[in-house]
Amino acid sequence: MAPEHSARIGFIGLGVMGRAMAHNLLGAGFAVTVWNRSPAACEGLVAAGARRAGHAAEAAACDVLVTMLADDDAVRAVVDAHDLITAMPDHGVHVNMATCSIECAREMTARHAEAGRDYVAAPVLGRPDIARAARLNIVAAGAAHAVERARPALTAMGQNVWPAGDEPHRANAIKLAANFMLVTAVEAMGEATSLTSAYGVEPADFLEIITGSVFAAPAYLGYSGAMADRDYDNPEGFRLALGAKDMNLALAAARAEHVPLPLAATARERLVEALAAGEADLDLSVLAEGSRRAAHLDDRD
Amino acid sequence: MAPEHSARIGFIGLGVMGRAMAHNLLGAGFAVTVWNRSPAACEGLVAAGARRAGHAAEAAACDVLVTMLADDDAVRAVVDAHDLITAMPDHGVHVNMATCSIECAREMTARHAEAGRDYVAAPVLGRPDIARAARLNIVAAGAAHAVERARPALTAMGQNVWPAGDEPHRANAIKLAANFMLVTAVEAMGEATSLTSAYGVEPADFLEIITGSVFAAPAYLGYSGAMADRDYDNPEGFRLALGAKDMNLALAAARAEHVPLPLAATARERLVEALAAGEADLDLSVLAEGSRRAAHLDDRD
Amino acid sequence: MAPEHSARIGFIGLGVMGRAMAHNLLGAGFAVTVWNRSPAACEGLVAAGARRAGHAAEAAACDVLVTMLADDDAVRAVVDAHDLITAMPDHGVHVNMATCSIECAREMTARHAEAGRDYVAAPVLGRPDIARAARLNIVAAGAAHAVERARPALTAMGQNVWPAGDEPHRANAIKLAANFMLVTAVEAMGEATSLTSAYGVEPADFLEIITGSVFAAPAYLGYSGAMADRDYDNPEGFRLALGAKDMNLALAAARAEHVPLPLAATARERLVEALAAGEADLDLSVLAEGSRRAAHLDDRD
Amino acid sequence: MAPEHSARIGFIGLGVMGRAMAHNLLGAGFAVTVWNRSPAACEGLVAAGARRAGHAAEAAACDVLVTMLADDDAVRAVVDAHDLITAMPDHGVHVNMATCSIECAREMTARHAEAGRDYVAAPVLGRPDIARAARLNIVAAGAAHAVERARPALTAMGQNVWPAGDEPHRANAIKLAANFMLVTAVEAMGEATSLTSAYGVEPADFLEIITGSVFAAPAYLGYSGAMADRDYDNPEGFRLALGAKDMNLALAAARAEHVPLPLAATARERLVEALAAGEADLDLSVLAEGSRRAAHLDDRD
Repeated sequence: MAPEHSARIGFIGLGVMGRAMAHNLLGAGFAVTVWNRSPAACEGLVAAGARRAGHAAEAAACDVLVTMLADDDAVRAVVDAHDLITAMPDHGVHVNMATCSIECAREMTARHAEAGRDYVAAPVLGRPDIARAARLNIVAAGAAHAVERARPALTAMGQNVWPAGDEPHRANAIKLAANFMLVTAVEAMGEATSLTSAYGVEPADFLEIITGSVFAAPAYLGYSGAMADRDYDNPEGFRLALGAKDMNLALAAARAEHVPLPLAATARERLVEALAAGEADLDLSVLAEGSRRAAHLDDRD
Repeated sequence: MAPEHSARIGFIGLGVMGRAMAHNLLGAGFAVTVWNRSPAACEGLVAAGARRAGHAAEAAACDVLVTMLADDDAVRAVVDAHDLITAMPDHGVHVNMATCSIECAREMTARHAEAGRDYVAAPVLGRPDIARAARLNIVAAGAAHAVERARPALTAMGQNVWPAGDEPHRANAIKLAANFMLVTAVEAMGEATSLTSAYGVEPADFLEIITGSVFAAPAYLGYSGAMADRDYDNPEGFRLALGAKDMNLALAAARAEHVPLPLAATARERLVEALAAGEADLDLSVLAEGSRRAAHLDDRD
Repeated sequence: MAPEHSARIGFIGLGVMGRAMAHNLLGAGFAVTVWNRSPAACEGLVAAGARRAGHAAEAAACDVLVTMLADDDAVRAVVDAHDLITAMPDHGVHVNMATCSIECAREMTARHAEAGRDYVAAPVLGRPDIARAARLNIVAAGAAHAVERARPALTAMGQNVWPAGDEPHRANAIKLAANFMLVTAVEAMGEATSLTSAYGVEPADFLEIITGSVFAAPAYLGYSGAMADRDYDNPEGFRLALGAKDMNLALAAARAEHVPLPLAATARERLVEALAAGEADLDLSVLAEGSRRAAHLDDRD
Repeated sequence: MAPEHSARIGFIGLGVMGRAMAHNLLGAGFAVTVWNRSPAACEGLVAAGARRAGHAAEAAACDVLVTMLADDDAVRAVVDAHDLITAMPDHGVHVNMATCSIECAREMTARHAEAGRDYVAAPVLGRPDIARAARLNIVAAGAAHAVERARPALTAMGQNVWPAGDEPHRANAIKLAANFMLVTAVEAMGEATSLTSAYGVEPADFLEIITGSVFAAPAYLGYSGAMADRDYDNPEGFRLALGAKDMNLALAAARAEHVPLPLAATARERLVEALAAGEADLDLSVLAEGSRRAAHLDDRD
């Protein structure tokens, strides 16, 4: 039986990722109060023992408030609409696990500080299947005491909690940089697959070799299967539109600090081509199809 | 004690990689005849039991001739100067383990075929430390019977022998594509490290997180240490000039078959900058310094 | 003596460009009422016959309101702070000549339409010396009757008024596309100059040849002199920071409509390098120094 | 009547460009001896007064030998097959007007020097219509006395003869740099046209504006018409395959001297896409179609 935890967790944002994470909190013995804009998303969790918040502020009133929202706009909308910062208890800590911009992180840090509340940025590396297995890599930044207070909950959701110092936005910078690397890795794998295909090598054969050797890492293994099968309709995957969003945030963060990222800039235009092709909702691995199109591979004999 | 192998191996090309590989053949019980343009490189192997060839053709006269030379020019020069194909026995197989161009592979395939000799392209993935540990990934292409004849030797040098069909140049296409991915991965890691540095994250901290999570693969782990330490003087590393050579070959192969590789093209210009900076002989990870220069990071407070 | 014009012009935004343009309106016989956030900028114009507005709304109350402000934020700030749209007369037309985003153009179009006022986007091609000579190229879009009402004023400021249809944002799209081409042209000229320099050709010689032949156009001639002299401190020039702003707007416009712009993306990272080098306030032609740095040309003998 | 010139000209290489140039030499009163691998190309010139060489060496035996061949390989093939350098008279000067590589220029310079013969590199800027009008821009490099000897002939073919010093390869470096700029300009114009098209601007309208203002130069005017009409079948144009060849030479020249050319690298991959699309023989302006494809413009309503 899972141990009881004294901290009460409020959880807002029950998309595919959020639901998986909240289930793991329940499984670890936490008392979890859930809220979601579309209430239907709460049902499985309530069935599993979560308390349904009547309004979002109830979730914020817990010891630890976890938010797992889609983007900056969603974070700001939810925080503002429900006055969440005011609703937090004195000792509360807000753990924002979304992939936000540096700006959003700094704004939230300042607003919580003004209100005397703790704020931790804790974005995650990993897709839904990893979230479900509680094997996320979580990068956490914020005041040391706040991170410590959040740690039991984070540990229940991830296999590693990587400390990133006391300025929350640094965790976001790390996450954006990692996602830029991820998108670039997937694009490179797609280009390389087109190159070898043009020399008669089957995609599956090439992808097996590289992911079985020097590229045996989740960044590649999570995408090579879809490329091999040319089947990109994966609800568990990383939507191309989200990859594009993250690349835009990474490039904006780089621009703000005058850091050239030539590979990111190049990869971003490939994402734009994929969006133009109507592939926003497919898995990021569909970038391989853009490489095939550019090489006109399917027009060859 | 290592088992005796009946096949006699000739080994030409005793650079850092070649010496490590030949030692593993000896360790596996093969009778190995070695030859190198600069004869001094043979000494350690002779001390370990190898036979020193009086001239290169003696190495070619073995059952299996392994060549591990620097590039196309070296392959052509050695093969021509010593008339190696003619020196091979009827049943001989030449296993060319260098990173060659598609053109060179096709030319060698044709020349061996004309002479009625077997030719296998078997380029390797891995750096000297991996070679020394006999943990190379070897991509082998050529006539099935020829690959089979070479297999015991390949198995003694690598942890995996990946089959790539019966056209030798396909193995080279795979190797070039993998090295394009590698250079791109290292460049991306360098750019990402500059980005996070600009936000106050220590390179070592960022690199530990990514190589401990989604990028936990040799392509990253083999280079992150040098980036973290900013010490790129690594005789065991992958020289930047060789990375540049391989990228040029990958782009030439892509151009020949009309496959656009936008990421490769972008990364190649970063290699050119590094060459202009005089970093040809440093480890490939020195690409990170180019990103730092472009962001003028070391001019900041 | 210049002809009298019946239309009274209000002019807001008296930077280097705005002052030159307003002087030309005066010279053409228009009654011009000027306003600027820093009032000192009005003085030369008042001395030349302009009327100084006591507050910005007085300028808006004219028949034609011309605004020539720095960017989206400045446009919104001035329009909102002084309630300019409300201050316009029924028959008034607001001619926004700044380089704005598509979004800003659409927002302004909608806000004027709601208030029953006419709005024309009329961004200009040309630098201060061209503005002074009344030789700007003006791209004008908006309702045909509104463009016609503005035409006498536009004609006084430019050598050509190019019609771009009745949707104002189209003029902005054209301007952003033209400025992306301009920045790319200057970057290409810088790269090409580094290439020929590496072969011993003096920059001035190369630049004379190309701008005297196939590239004999303002986009090149306006920047080649500074490159030849390596002197980029030109108050009449096009500030690199503005070029960067326009490239960001062009890429944002492209992204919003899913149009890949690989050259723009590549050139943008070169601008970021220049910003990191502290070159924001120099002429755009300083991009050539970034190419020299990347080639380490000044470290060569 | 055209003046008589004392110098006898040999002319080898009678493609579209070469024929136009040779006609202008005849028109200027030169005695011209022509030779071409396919003899049919000589006919119009012979009808116009040229002397047909029985073999290539007769052309080389003239005072000035002009060669206008397709590429390095053609230059080497003709020079070697007919032993042209030996066939030149003591006072002869070979004026190579092709777009050659730096390497080829250096090799030819050395071979002529060894034989005690003068060699001038004089590549041209301009397409067939410009050649026909004798309005080429000619960049000439070589020993001053040799350039002087060639000058009357060059003047008959071009509107400007730009001196580029006494090392022939410098003229080639200039030509390659100019053609890199040209290809980049055309690609940028194509991308910009796609961007404005996505906002409802007709290509012809956008192209008229930019080529009537800041981009009013041959590099743009020579290509905008085809883009506006989307008709790229122009025997007078600049074949995309030749543009690709020149970009490869420019990038190779840059690489050899360690000069990064990020824009060239990016543009080159766009050329590769066009080659994959089967557009090798169309006019370079067909790059605009690649931009349209990448934006999937023709799939939109």
